[in-house]
Amino acid sequence: MTTYSATVTVRLKQGVLDPEAQTTKQALERLGFELDSLSSVDQFEIELDAESENSARERVTEMTERLLANPTMHDYEVTLDQR
Amino acid sequence: MTTYSATVTVRLKQGVLDPEAQTTKQALERLGFELDSLSSVDQFEIELDAESENSARERVTEMTERLLANPTMHDYEVTLDQR
Repeated sequence: MTTYSATVTVRLKQGVLDPEAQTTKQALERLGFELDSLSSVDQFEIELDAESENSARERVTEMTERLLANPTMHDYEVTLDQR
Repeated sequence: MTTYSATVTVRLKQGVLDPEAQTTKQALERLGFELDSLSSVDQFEIELDAESENSARERVTEMTERLLANPTMHDYEVTLDQR
């Protein structure tokens, strides 16, 4: 068994409104900052033991699809490093 | 003026409890997944116009310290790309 470190990046699909990011952008503007856009992304860092990189990737992808992301609203990316 | 794309990564400092990540880990375990640890990280993607990379980096670092991160609880990283 090898320990892998996976990073799952979950972001809203293009066109899905993000009121929280909009509020953060407005708050920055009220503080006097100039910016064109702000979007927010959730990232999960997961450590797990697996037989192979492929099996780690499969397990993390399944975790993402079942719990971490909502495929209707989110796009996601899984990257994997061996520890 | 050049348009830059900045990524701000905000994570809890070592030792700060993260009950939300703990709950997510337990929920994955209840679904039958095995994992050693899970931590969650907030990322902000900001587009802005600036005279130079240095001035873009300074402005994003100031935004982060004033609003996006709480220096008592969080560590942060700023990376910058030219668009």
